Amino acid sequence: MARAWSLHSRPEGMPKHTDFAMIDVAPAALGDGEVRIANRWLSVDPYMRGRMNDVKSYVPPFALGEPMQGGAVGEVIESRADAVPVGTWVQHMGGWRDEAVMPAAQVQRLPDLGVDPQAFLGQLGMPGMTAYFGLLAVAEAKAGDTVFVSAAAGAVGSTVVQIAKAKDMTVIGSAGGADKCDWVRSLGADAVIDYKAGEPLVKALAAAAPKGIDVYFDNVGGDHLDAALAHARPNARFAICGMIDVYNSGEPTKLRYLARLIGNRVRMQGFIVSDHMARAAEFYDDMGAMLKAGTLKREETVHDGLEAMPDAFLGLFTGGNKGKMLVRL
Amino acid sequence: MARAWSLHSRPEGMPKHTDFAMIDVAPAALGDGEVRIANRWLSVDPYMRGRMNDVKSYVPPFALGEPMQGGAVGEVIESRADAVPVGTWVQHMGGWRDEAVMPAAQVQRLPDLGVDPQAFLGQLGMPGMTAYFGLLAVAEAKAGDTVFVSAAAGAVGSTVVQIAKAKDMTVIGSAGGADKCDWVRSLGADAVIDYKAGEPLVKALAAAAPKGIDVYFDNVGGDHLDAALAHARPNARFAICGMIDVYNSGEPTKLRYLARLIGNRVRMQGFIVSDHMARAAEFYDDMGAMLKAGTLKREETVHDGLEAMPDAFLGLFTGGNKGKMLVRL
Repeated sequence: MARAWSLHSRPEGMPKHTDFAMIDVAPAALGDGEVRIANRWLSVDPYMRGRMNDVKSYVPPFALGEPMQGGAVGEVIESRADAVPVGTWVQHMGGWRDEAVMPAAQVQRLPDLGVDPQAFLGQLGMPGMTAYFGLLAVAEAKAGDTVFVSAAAGAVGSTVVQIAKAKDMTVIGSAGGADKCDWVRSLGADAVIDYKAGEPLVKALAAAAPKGIDVYFDNVGGDHLDAALAHARPNARFAICGMIDVYNSGEPTKLRYLARLIGNRVRMQGFIVSDHMARAAEFYDDMGAMLKAGTLKREETVHDGLEAMPDAFLGLFTGGNKGKMLVRL
Repeated sequence: MARAWSLHSRPEGMPKHTDFAMIDVAPAALGDGEVRIANRWLSVDPYMRGRMNDVKSYVPPFALGEPMQGGAVGEVIESRADAVPVGTWVQHMGGWRDEAVMPAAQVQRLPDLGVDPQAFLGQLGMPGMTAYFGLLAVAEAKAGDTVFVSAAAGAVGSTVVQIAKAKDMTVIGSAGGADKCDWVRSLGADAVIDYKAGEPLVKALAAAAPKGIDVYFDNVGGDHLDAALAHARPNARFAICGMIDVYNSGEPTKLRYLARLIGNRVRMQGFIVSDHMARAAEFYDDMGAMLKAGTLKREETVHDGLEAMPDAFLGLFTGGNKGKMLVRL
């Protein structure tokens, strides 16, 4: 019997283990054009928190009592689609479960880039594309720019740091705790701010970027965003990718430096990665080459077994991951 | 003896009359290339509040005890510059005084558009250019868009309403009090929100723009900005022109809907009008034609006499003006 995680109740604030329930999924015969996939790697990502609320957004909310969705990589074990035969490794959105039945049109065969399959849930997947297009397309960052990135030890942030360094930018990252900060420094960041060290971010960023910043890549919101506003240089560009600070708290964001937008002609641009899917080939070319050349370091925090999915997910909000958070089946 | 207003003390919060002092200016002989101007109209504008703080910004702070600067229109009464003879009407930044001595290179001859000279401090001046380029260039508003503009009874906002209507947009304006709201409606606004009526702006905007907004022209910040974020449609563009709500209070802005930026790919762009000066000819052509044709209605709130400058300026922050606030000498 296949098993899947379902949302048992809609969380108020920080989700709890009791908001999730494992359910059995009755075995389904394949329809024409469908494949059965044994999932090998499951992804947990901060954006999933939004789908737990009953609010219309760019992705629909999870239905209570139904299998949840999310990024997954696995191997086709049964096929009624000629284009995707048994043995093919694919990525798809039928995650949070050990086995998925999907129309072949909704799975992507993993490109042959000579990297581990789980990389397609990280640097070669949604988080990597988010970092790549957020930095280069949305924020239009270019060589010589000073870039500030929050949650720089996360899956997206750590990739932003490395792409920025590979493209000759100056990079300041923030992360929580000495261990993560050391790691972000080892990725090439020119300066690292430990946001748990107690110094106000506005002061810490002033020291790290005495001439201000040209680009801010926001994964956090709140005080991080405010500090970036305080130190934005003229014509700075902010790519607003996530606001993990408010996903659970529901508290309003307090910005003391918002009016700086005006005099400094700052652009804040919210984005979601799927808008950039049409440029996936360019992304695989550039990022695949950097990964194979060793320019990009991959780091994963791995939990084992389907049972661990809620632990892995909740860990995203308590700083439990370095690099990409994954569950291995 | 010429007279000028000087800043006597840097205001904390809302400026007081005692922050201003009238000073005598000793008569200066003209240098080569200079002109003496008898000012006829003086401008007061919200951005001047920022220059009263001792903070580096896109315009330098006012020096204590020195004549303040600001937009002015006047007549040349003495000239040592061939290009600008006696009798020429000009606009320049030597305001807050009855007589100005300026290098001819720093004054602009009023273009002959067949309108009253004080229009060059309003719809044909800085506020008009702010409205025009903020709406059309920064926010890229186009026919069919739904536009929300705050402080819609102000010099900039009332011009935004009218340009937007002239270019076939749907317009929602906010203003304080029934009288101003009636006036904004008379300018062609499709819906008007009285922000003093007690209904939360988020609710009022939901009713006025049930399908959401494509463009927000922000003169106010604070709750207005938050309401605009709550109702932004996908790919909405916000032109951030002013935040009169925070100029005096110094309080942080609380935004409950900021994370909506992400899913809706909202762009917030701060701007200052001087970046668009290179396109002044296009502006005079288009706006001059609309003014002459009567497509744009001009409204002025006029104070008389140099003594009235602080009253006029302070009135900007207490809702004392419909249209452009001016002082006539």
